[in-house]
Amino acid sequence: MPDIIEPKVLKGFRDYLPRDETARRGLMEVLERVFRASGYTPIDTPALEYAEILLGKGGGETDKQSYRFRDNGDRDVALRFDLTVPFARFMAAHADELYLPFRRYHMAKVWRGENTQRGRFREFVQCDFDIVGVDSSSADAEILILIADALSALEVGGFTIRLSHRGVFNRFLSSLGAAGSSVAVLRLVDKLDKIGAEEVLRLLEAEIGAGAAAKVLLFVTAKGDFDETLAAMEQMAGGPADDTRRLREIWRDAKAAGIGGSVRLDPSVTRGLDYYTGVVFETNLSALPDIGSVCSGGRYDELASLYTKKKLPGVGAAIGLDRLLAALDELGLSKGAQAYTRVVILNIEEGLEPRLHSLARALRAQGIETEIYPERRKLAQQFAYAERKGVPFALILGKDEAERGVVQMKDLASRESVELPAPGPESALDASAAARFVRERSAG
Amino acid sequence: MPDIIEPKVLKGFRDYLPRDETARRGLMEVLERVFRASGYTPIDTPALEYAEILLGKGGGETDKQSYRFRDNGDRDVALRFDLTVPFARFMAAHADELYLPFRRYHMAKVWRGENTQRGRFREFVQCDFDIVGVDSSSADAEILILIADALSALEVGGFTIRLSHRGVFNRFLSSLGAAGSSVAVLRLVDKLDKIGAEEVLRLLEAEIGAGAAAKVLLFVTAKGDFDETLAAMEQMAGGPADDTRRLREIWRDAKAAGIGGSVRLDPSVTRGLDYYTGVVFETNLSALPDIGSVCSGGRYDELASLYTKKKLPGVGAAIGLDRLLAALDELGLSKGAQAYTRVVILNIEEGLEPRLHSLARALRAQGIETEIYPERRKLAQQFAYAERKGVPFALILGKDEAERGVVQMKDLASRESVELPAPGPESALDASAAARFVRERSAG
Repeated sequence: MPDIIEPKVLKGFRDYLPRDETARRGLMEVLERVFRASGYTPIDTPALEYAEILLGKGGGETDKQSYRFRDNGDRDVALRFDLTVPFARFMAAHADELYLPFRRYHMAKVWRGENTQRGRFREFVQCDFDIVGVDSSSADAEILILIADALSALEVGGFTIRLSHRGVFNRFLSSLGAAGSSVAVLRLVDKLDKIGAEEVLRLLEAEIGAGAAAKVLLFVTAKGDFDETLAAMEQMAGGPADDTRRLREIWRDAKAAGIGGSVRLDPSVTRGLDYYTGVVFETNLSALPDIGSVCSGGRYDELASLYTKKKLPGVGAAIGLDRLLAALDELGLSKGAQAYTRVVILNIEEGLEPRLHSLARALRAQGIETEIYPERRKLAQQFAYAERKGVPFALILGKDEAERGVVQMKDLASRESVELPAPGPESALDASAAARFVRERSAG
Repeated sequence: MPDIIEPKVLKGFRDYLPRDETARRGLMEVLERVFRASGYTPIDTPALEYAEILLGKGGGETDKQSYRFRDNGDRDVALRFDLTVPFARFMAAHADELYLPFRRYHMAKVWRGENTQRGRFREFVQCDFDIVGVDSSSADAEILILIADALSALEVGGFTIRLSHRGVFNRFLSSLGAAGSSVAVLRLVDKLDKIGAEEVLRLLEAEIGAGAAAKVLLFVTAKGDFDETLAAMEQMAGGPADDTRRLREIWRDAKAAGIGGSVRLDPSVTRGLDYYTGVVFETNLSALPDIGSVCSGGRYDELASLYTKKKLPGVGAAIGLDRLLAALDELGLSKGAQAYTRVVILNIEEGLEPRLHSLARALRAQGIETEIYPERRKLAQQFAYAERKGVPFALILGKDEAERGVVQMKDLASRESVELPAPGPESALDASAAARFVRERSAG
């Protein structure tokens, strides 16, 4: 007999047991419904790609974090670390086969060899959605509406989508003569929530001088309702322009779609990354502001410029599914379950098993998730199993019931039973009565 | 400007565009419903594991085909090449947290660096389902019933589950004095469909001699209905035993569940792999017998003996999802689509966009998948988009309609339109009338 191999998983990776996996799939199914309801179509791309595609000419943080290796054909390959880069490559490869504007969603695993402290995992599910091939306020507004629809459907409670616009911010920086430092300033402003205004001011001063730094802080902390904040930003940025008109149109559409109450203009939102060129946004849960944004994104001018000369502007967002799952868990809103089974058919009497299979079939045909306890065991053991698996109802067919042409349907929580007719060894039970029993009590 | 990187994927990998991905997701959703209806629960395991876990102490075919490398922490890791080995590791790690018998399904990607000729891919989706912790005829029958339920729900037309039992075969081989060659014989018999009876006989003769070889061929080609074939097998194997009793009970349960017409006893089914110890089965589509088995499996004594001393017998099967997809494509039964959208709201009139967003919201609330063309364009271009995306209906709100307090709902196939009331700039349209229009025509 060989040595036992310890059944461990890699650090930063994890198994999903039924309760966690059903919770995750529940989220994903709700999201799929929402995306499909708004014209978004699923796509998929390989988990493994040429490293050059995923990492470009290399260097940088993602490169260090990536699972990169040589395959058996000595190709330089890597596991995808996000869904954006593969989508860019996908659009460059297939733009001619697709219709534009193209709306897609993609929910799939990505891998990053990150530091596993702070509860970060090295394998996690991303959920991206984008509309590509159009630069319009309607498309921008649509993504915000979709975020709101998704979070409402997920029943996460209140949330705020915090919106800003890179263009307005850049105009403002130019007016300060600080346009050359825009990336550095964006990154610093992005840290406002984490390190606080005082520290950001100190770092900004070192970057662009005390006067400009103070103005930047004033700009990003503008307060008021959407229109007031927009007026203040506009004034500081040098007056109306396409970018502020865009924000007004988005606001108008958001209100028309009934999500005005969940959208706030917040000039401190910058999304540190440098590829956004228009609107940028983050989303916070009212009940858990500290966990950070659960859905972020923005508009970009050129999705796929690394792979094609075709101009593909777009706007999109990504939901951090695992962060959202953790949040729902913390709020007691997670909907994971041990199983979907609603009826377990107990296995008591030798020779009656064929009837159990025909009973199960009849219940399933009524839409009732049903399983058979797969061998004869003591009743106590079968009940204990049902309880551990969280199955709410049991169907009992013993010798006595078989002789009398009935079955017992038992509500395992209340311990109540009803007797239902199930005549003859060949004939099925009145499954609609059994299904009604289950449905009425499941609703209550 | 940097050089353009060619947007290519690795050999043996592929992108899934909307039509293929919606088809694949359609299959997966049907399968999930079927599994859940019978008490099966989803789990997930990491794509990447310690190579030692996945490949054992090494060597062999899977080792050569695996994507194995050293990660940034110098760990010896590999991508999973199936879902069975990770499930074994999972059960060894979590048996105490789970209830037994444990029913799970797992649909996920696996990776094999196989020869890409013959249309094989290096990344594909497996779909496994098992019931572990029980050794009973009811559990065996349940897996067959689940296969039948799954294929019926997938609407693949007729199919046959071909069933046999390793135990009967082994008894028969012992009676020939050929027990020592059982693995070799199993592998040869497994090739019957591929290389033909004559060639198998020749190879068997070399292995176990002419007399025994002829008897093996007679055994595996036994013909007749289930009971007749079973009687013949039983007689050649030396009489009744647990294994033949098991087959009789499975047959009895399968008939009771109404799937008798799809199950055939076929002693030539052996599943060449050597870890099966009880029933084994394969499933062929009547319309496409040549593509081979679309769903195979069997009973094993010890799922997880590499990782635990706990005995975990079980029975399960795997659906080759990509083979099934290819089959459905070939049969013209694939249900892929460019999109789920049923109504596109055309974008014609400057200033009306907020109303389009409120109309879209009202339709979505009625369960109608609705999108807005996201910018103003010529009508011809918007119609062409709807056609390419396969959207069946358009909603039109121009200046004239807005003034008259109506919208046009247009059936894009028949070109018929109806006018529906949509009074006032703030008020929504009568979305239930619009939804009715869509539903009635979608059904017809």
